[in-house]
Amino acid sequence: MNVMESVQNRFSVRSYLQKSVEPERLQRLLEAARLAPSARNLQEWRFVVVTNEGTRERLMHAAQEQRFVGEAPVVIAACAEDVEHVMPCGQLSHPIDVAIALEHIALQAVDEGLGTCWIGAFDEAQVKEILGIPDEVRVVQLMTVGYPAVAPGPKTRKPLNEIVMYERWGK
Amino acid sequence: MNVMESVQNRFSVRSYLQKSVEPERLQRLLEAARLAPSARNLQEWRFVVVTNEGTRERLMHAAQEQRFVGEAPVVIAACAEDVEHVMPCGQLSHPIDVAIALEHIALQAVDEGLGTCWIGAFDEAQVKEILGIPDEVRVVQLMTVGYPAVAPGPKTRKPLNEIVMYERWGK
Repeated sequence: MNVMESVQNRFSVRSYLQKSVEPERLQRLLEAARLAPSARNLQEWRFVVVTNEGTRERLMHAAQEQRFVGEAPVVIAACAEDVEHVMPCGQLSHPIDVAIALEHIALQAVDEGLGTCWIGAFDEAQVKEILGIPDEVRVVQLMTVGYPAVAPGPKTRKPLNEIVMYERWGK
Repeated sequence: MNVMESVQNRFSVRSYLQKSVEPERLQRLLEAARLAPSARNLQEWRFVVVTNEGTRERLMHAAQEQRFVGEAPVVIAACAEDVEHVMPCGQLSHPIDVAIALEHIALQAVDEGLGTCWIGAFDEAQVKEILGIPDEVRVVQLMTVGYPAVAPGPKTRKPLNEIVMYERWGK
């Protein structure tokens, strides 16, 4: 599956089959993340991969009781160490770097027949406590991974002319 | 080219051929960005696509005189409107959402035979002034796009066992 097909077929999967993810597939997802670019090649991303059912259930509670978080066979906590680095443009590096790596996982997952969902609705302190993550580390996002139990709906996106400008800002 | 090949073949291209990017290729890059996921489907990304030589030269000056910024036939300023939105986990949405969309561009570019480079080393105020970008908008990153004049070197990345943990934090 080429990149565009993966982009087109990715959707936020909020219902999963009760089927575990083969270790070799999971390895490829993590390998795709590993190869991501980062500011100054910091590679400050750290991934805690959770398959334990009890832990996933606790993560569900920490994620506003979103059922699919407990249902998905894999939940990845995408974390960052070295969270103080700021680029000259003024942006913190770690949210951007972790996002890039995590989207590599999401796109590779589509190619593996898997689905994912980005999750920002969680209590960071609770997730840290559940997974034993140190204070100085940030949990940037959670992501569920598993075989989708649902089909994609249509994508609702702004047309290109609302998001792209040429040569100068102006609409 | 499948996702993994694109991930493997992507590198930070800092030297470009003096050959323009075909409009239909550029459209596909932007289409890949358009289809990205975002928090609450905000789609707060805005892309200013610059091909004008004089403007690219000014952007080069705003980007710490990095030569390839003026040399690349296309420079994209990846911006965000609606920059106040914070997810329940405590992360601002816009750096993450813009990063996802911009990496879609980077991966699609590889499939098109193009190269890109993420740029965080720029003066945001100067870039805003050059492109007429309003105060309330953030310029999250710049990205150059063009045909590479160089071949990729080896990737230097931490091994998986330094970035992945299972079930709990702990190394």
